[in-house]
Amino acid sequence: MSGAQNAPGAPAGSGADDRKRADARRNIEAIVEAATRLLAVDPDASVSEIAKVAGVGRVTLYGHFATRTTLLREVVDRAIDQTDRTLAGVDFDGAPREALGRLLEMSWQLTHRFGALVVAASGTLPPEEIRRAHDQPAERVRLLLERGRTDGSFRADMPIEWQISVIQAVLHGASAAVHRGEITADEAPELVRSTVLAALAG
Amino acid sequence: MSGAQNAPGAPAGSGADDRKRADARRNIEAIVEAATRLLAVDPDASVSEIAKVAGVGRVTLYGHFATRTTLLREVVDRAIDQTDRTLAGVDFDGAPREALGRLLEMSWQLTHRFGALVVAASGTLPPEEIRRAHDQPAERVRLLLERGRTDGSFRADMPIEWQISVIQAVLHGASAAVHRGEITADEAPELVRSTVLAALAG
Repeated sequence: MSGAQNAPGAPAGSGADDRKRADARRNIEAIVEAATRLLAVDPDASVSEIAKVAGVGRVTLYGHFATRTTLLREVVDRAIDQTDRTLAGVDFDGAPREALGRLLEMSWQLTHRFGALVVAASGTLPPEEIRRAHDQPAERVRLLLERGRTDGSFRADMPIEWQISVIQAVLHGASAAVHRGEITADEAPELVRSTVLAALAG
Repeated sequence: MSGAQNAPGAPAGSGADDRKRADARRNIEAIVEAATRLLAVDPDASVSEIAKVAGVGRVTLYGHFATRTTLLREVVDRAIDQTDRTLAGVDFDGAPREALGRLLEMSWQLTHRFGALVVAASGTLPPEEIRRAHDQPAERVRLLLERGRTDGSFRADMPIEWQISVIQAVLHGASAAVHRGEITADEAPELVRSTVLAALAG
C-alpha cells in the first residue's frame, strides 16, 4: 500500500495533526474506491475523472499518488489483497464439486468487481504484477481440481492447466456478458457454476 | 479494402504501368500479411516494424496506408472477410453436436490467427467494427444452438446468449493458453471441442 501510509516518525498527539491525518486517510480511501469503480468500467478513466468522483481536487490526488501508475498499482494491490482474504475464507473441504461451486461463487464476485480493472492495469503495470492477481487463486483451484480428479469428481483426460484456463475464461466471459447486457449480474453466479461444473464433470 | 484498389480510370495497357501496378499489389499484400502476423502477437507493433517484416520502406507503406489506423482497418476487414468465407464452408447440417464440433474446429483456427489482432484493434477502431468480427459467426452458432436445443442435443436451461458467450470465451481462452505455453496449438482444437460440448450437453 505504497501511497497509503502516514509519513513515518510524524509527530503524534497534536489535535490539528490528528485531524490532518484523518483527512488524508479519508481522501486516500475515497480516491482508491473511486479508481476501483471507474477503472472497472472504463479502463481509460483519467486522473481528473477519478478525482472528481472521489470528491477531491487533482492537486490533492497527486499529493497522495504522484502518478497514474502509482494509483493503479495501489488499486491492484488492494484488489489482490481482498481477493486473497476472500478466497481464504472459502471452505475447501468436503465434496470437490460442492467446494468448487462455493469457490466459483466467490470468484465470480471478485472477477466482476476487479476483472476489468486488471485488464485496465495490463497496459500500465508489468506482466508479473498482473500475473500475481491470478497466481494465488489459480493455486487454490489447482489443489481442489487435483483432489477432484483423483476421486472422479472431475474429468482427468485433459491438462489441469487447461481446466484452470477454462474456469478463468468463463468467469471473465460472464463479467463481459453482464457489461454487454446479455445476462444480469444476478443470473451470472449460477450460470458460471453450472457451466464450469458441466465442462469439468468426471 | 480501402487502400488496396488501383486508381480508377488509370490508363491500362502500358507495360511500365502494368509492372508498377503489379509491384503495388505485391507490396500491399506483403504489408497486410506482415501486419496480420505481427499484430496478432504484439498489439503494439509499430508501422516501422511492420514495414521491415514486409520488406518495404516506410515511405512505400505510407503511400498505400496513410495512417496506422487505415492499415489496421484493412487488416481487420480482411480478417472478417476470411472468417465469413471460412465459416460459410462449414457443413452445418446433420447432428447438432457433430456440426458444432466442425464449427469449433474452424473457429479455433480463426480465433488463434485473428483473435489477438481484434484485441489489438479494439483500442483503435470503433466498437461497432470490432463487433462486426463476431456478429456473423455468432449468428451461425445461434442457429445451430437453437436447432440442438430443440432436439435435446444441447441443454436449454440457460440463455442462448450465455452459451454463445461461453463458446467465445473458451476459444479466446484457448488462444491465450497457447500464447502462455500452457497447452500446444495442436492440442487446442480437441480441448476446445470436448470442453464446449460438455458445457453445453443436453
